[in-house]
Amino acid sequence: MAFRIGFLIFPDITQLDMSGPYEVLNNLPEAEIHLIWKTRDPIRAGGGLQLIPNTTFADCPQLDVICVPGGSGINRLLNDAETLAFLRHQAARARYVTSVCTGALVLGAAGLLKGKRAASHWMSREMLAAFGATPVAERVVTDGNIITGGGVTAGIDFGLVVAAQAFGEEVAKGIQLSIEYDPHPPFDAGSPERAGPVLVAAARAKSAKRQAERQAAVDEAAARLRGI
Amino acid sequence: MAFRIGFLIFPDITQLDMSGPYEVLNNLPEAEIHLIWKTRDPIRAGGGLQLIPNTTFADCPQLDVICVPGGSGINRLLNDAETLAFLRHQAARARYVTSVCTGALVLGAAGLLKGKRAASHWMSREMLAAFGATPVAERVVTDGNIITGGGVTAGIDFGLVVAAQAFGEEVAKGIQLSIEYDPHPPFDAGSPERAGPVLVAAARAKSAKRQAERQAAVDEAAARLRGI
Repeated sequence: MAFRIGFLIFPDITQLDMSGPYEVLNNLPEAEIHLIWKTRDPIRAGGGLQLIPNTTFADCPQLDVICVPGGSGINRLLNDAETLAFLRHQAARARYVTSVCTGALVLGAAGLLKGKRAASHWMSREMLAAFGATPVAERVVTDGNIITGGGVTAGIDFGLVVAAQAFGEEVAKGIQLSIEYDPHPPFDAGSPERAGPVLVAAARAKSAKRQAERQAAVDEAAARLRGI
Repeated sequence: MAFRIGFLIFPDITQLDMSGPYEVLNNLPEAEIHLIWKTRDPIRAGGGLQLIPNTTFADCPQLDVICVPGGSGINRLLNDAETLAFLRHQAARARYVTSVCTGALVLGAAGLLKGKRAASHWMSREMLAAFGATPVAERVVTDGNIITGGGVTAGIDFGLVVAAQAFGEEVAKGIQLSIEYDPHPPFDAGSPERAGPVLVAAARAKSAKRQAERQAAVDEAAARLRGI
């Protein structure tokens, strides 16, 4: 029996939010991966990589794992009724409701994180509170059947956590060995605490416009949620 | 002026070998990424993800970085004259000649690793010796302008090393922060030494057919190289 994993993909997705856990989860027994969007037309990820959806909202079977990756394109999803309805529909019966990076904000906008602890990219993490979630500065956070990963590369750690929960630690460890996941970052600047204030300020300055637009979209989505 | 990075992509590539460093290198100043194959038809990566080449061998400009990712599909490249000629042509003037995972074997088959230290996936690493290279059990190995990464996820560490060599450590650290690369593997099974003999034996058994075919292709390529 297939183990169905679905990634929402969308214009301006950060492709590694998806392709990291894809490589992990695709190694699970009977894995069947769905890359899901409104149509099957190729999508342009952030930076230009093209991705081809193989499933649409309309023809998607019930998934075992629904996963929302992040990227600048999530700003347009936070108030997109069709996407949020699709996620709520899948989440109602999925075994695991998950996200990587800023995908957590989309789960939040769909009303799926109320009262839950959740991770996200460090720069957008605090925005989760607007959706009734508790932002947590951890790499992977599990709360009930909600599993959320931190920024971008956290998707690999996230994938191994999902693999272990669904199929046990030995299966997850076998995948870890096959993808030789024994990381040795050449520098120690992977979190705001370790990177220090100068690099953090530069990153915030570079993202200021996107983050301002995101905050406005979060505010709108949060107001709508309170009205439900 | 563009900084041109080209990834060879091919049927049965391990997509994370490319998508990991893609995310890093695409954040470099003036980055221009080429996904290169013989035609522009979509390619099926290992596991089914489709990738769309945006450059062909024929129309590829001189690259600053040529990178060969790995995957089961490299077996067919080791004696593919057209691919090897393309790599030799690019390597002659590229600033960096690079690989991730078993892509190193393709560089070797092209005659580009003679007398060089190089990394590869743990399961195929020793095969590098047939091409006159010295296999090294490290995450990223730099020897002159040859930079090679270990298995799959080593591509992220590799990408940061290339970024630092080309643009300096501060640029690389800024990218590390933006992709929140502060890895916390939930298990410690990412190398054969740490995974232990049971998981290693299982991984070898699962890959026996592919590895036997690879050894035969390596032998053929090595004999051809000796004849040059």
